[in-house]
Amino acid sequence: MNTEAQLIKRIARAIPSRALGGKGLRLGIGDDAAIVAARSGYDWVVSCDALLEGVHFISDVHPADSIGYKALVRAASDLAAMGATPRVFLMTLALPAARTGKWLDEFLRGMGRAARLLGMVLAGGDTSRNREISISVTVMGEARGGASVTRGGARHGDLIYVSGKLGRAQLGLELVLGGHGNERRFAGLVRAHLYPRIRVALGKWLAERGIASAMMDLSDGLSTDLRRMAEASSAGARVWSERIPCVTIPPGVAKRLGGRRADPLKMALHGGEDYELLFTVRPRMVKMLRGAPGFGQITPIGEITRGKDILIIDGDGKTKALAPLGWDSFRKG
Amino acid sequence: MNTEAQLIKRIARAIPSRALGGKGLRLGIGDDAAIVAARSGYDWVVSCDALLEGVHFISDVHPADSIGYKALVRAASDLAAMGATPRVFLMTLALPAARTGKWLDEFLRGMGRAARLLGMVLAGGDTSRNREISISVTVMGEARGGASVTRGGARHGDLIYVSGKLGRAQLGLELVLGGHGNERRFAGLVRAHLYPRIRVALGKWLAERGIASAMMDLSDGLSTDLRRMAEASSAGARVWSERIPCVTIPPGVAKRLGGRRADPLKMALHGGEDYELLFTVRPRMVKMLRGAPGFGQITPIGEITRGKDILIIDGDGKTKALAPLGWDSFRKG
Repeated sequence: MNTEAQLIKRIARAIPSRALGGKGLRLGIGDDAAIVAARSGYDWVVSCDALLEGVHFISDVHPADSIGYKALVRAASDLAAMGATPRVFLMTLALPAARTGKWLDEFLRGMGRAARLLGMVLAGGDTSRNREISISVTVMGEARGGASVTRGGARHGDLIYVSGKLGRAQLGLELVLGGHGNERRFAGLVRAHLYPRIRVALGKWLAERGIASAMMDLSDGLSTDLRRMAEASSAGARVWSERIPCVTIPPGVAKRLGGRRADPLKMALHGGEDYELLFTVRPRMVKMLRGAPGFGQITPIGEITRGKDILIIDGDGKTKALAPLGWDSFRKG
Repeated sequence: MNTEAQLIKRIARAIPSRALGGKGLRLGIGDDAAIVAARSGYDWVVSCDALLEGVHFISDVHPADSIGYKALVRAASDLAAMGATPRVFLMTLALPAARTGKWLDEFLRGMGRAARLLGMVLAGGDTSRNREISISVTVMGEARGGASVTRGGARHGDLIYVSGKLGRAQLGLELVLGGHGNERRFAGLVRAHLYPRIRVALGKWLAERGIASAMMDLSDGLSTDLRRMAEASSAGARVWSERIPCVTIPPGVAKRLGGRRADPLKMALHGGEDYELLFTVRPRMVKMLRGAPGFGQITPIGEITRGKDILIIDGDGKTKALAPLGWDSFRKG
């Protein structure tokens, strides 16, 4: 039998949760609320994300430690996208009694690993019994006052960049769903789906130097997220399909997946959960990018335009509207 | 058809969500994350709470606007219990497509009312489709650095106080479940269950003057919460049953409820969701309490003792152990 108090003790053992002055956490897990103090001149950047059984993951398919890892990492990616440094998090965790044993231990191990990787501390939370697993994570990061980068700062003429290769997480998901999750040759792609890395150092670098005029993370797919950025900036955008850094589909995989799902460009445009950064840079600032962490993984894919249209130019020079076909749990529902 | 973007617009219309410098919110809803800045000398106090269909509410029984109201108010009560002033909140909201119409409008109306009552602003969130309604609210409040009151500061000899009458929310729940939710003579009790008030002014007053040595809110029942406070303070406690301010059971109700559920003392000891304050005061500070907001609604019920025992002394002077029989979703599960 588990009581809530026992669960909280297990959580606090598995995940870094001590009050650490250096992280800005003055009072941690175990009271009515936690107390955080920002360093002088710093703001708190806060965001929250839900991870739901049957919506964001399938508990028979996805390992519990991946769910714990991703629950934190995907929320923290929103901080990276503002240029903030992740510090503390809170979690509401609801799960069936049958999941409070081994499943929970693995979940907490994954979340603990993500917390250590990101240097984050669990500050508090709430646990409940529930029919389905339902996780909500709130993350708090520090950013120098005024240094955070929003989605709304892109202007006509700015160049559009993405980090990494896009569509890898989507292909990883297809491989896992197709039963190929344990094949060693797909390990990198499967890892991109189950244990994504996020771009904290790059985001912070771009923000602190004022190089990115607008920034966000690619969580729902480039076609959907680019439109969100353009709308927030009251601008349009055009991208060149041949410049988009697409996932490489390994030999033999294409025919197993079939159809649209085997098209690397479609995966890059509409696949979700890459957690790469999408950002814009004024032309005169472009040369400064050379000093960026992971500069070799940054690719210019297009430019911000006047008007509202989001356009894609194909290999033959033909221009089409880029429909937002990324992830939207309500549209698909 | 609802897309996530349309939902976010509806939420932002229904709930105060503008960036208001005075509330410490520098960037509000609509970006990857929100930005909050504390006033100089103030800390942020943060807490989160889940509200789940079938666990914390029954959607056929509980009005949607009560669910929206309570989702925010119960989380904010944790801030009141620290002595903090509620400022901003974030919400993850997951719900079935069938709940995105009228139900959602009423839910948002209730939450908007709570936000205005508390002077809180919605800073961000995350919306998803889900099979069941699942809400998680993270609240942030401001407190002067060092002024927050934890559960862990009670010492041998401190007097134990509660605000309000206990068991009212539990009786209100029983009335609602028994189909009496619309009878006018029960309106006050039903309101205590559906639209509880929280003790922000009292909590802040006690914290800022350093009068409360320990404080928490009564969310899971006095018997459970008093034990939590005593454990956090490495102390014991004893209370006098005749001093506990119990709900008054209206004539004619007792026989309808029957058994344990009609016993006002049991309701006061073990009933959840009163959101009253439980706090301790050093004997030499007691006289200062006279200036407290709502002083007439504050009752001394016992004292903090050495050791670990949580004891209750009945009307005949007999002492018994007070078992923690309040709400624990895991134990009941």
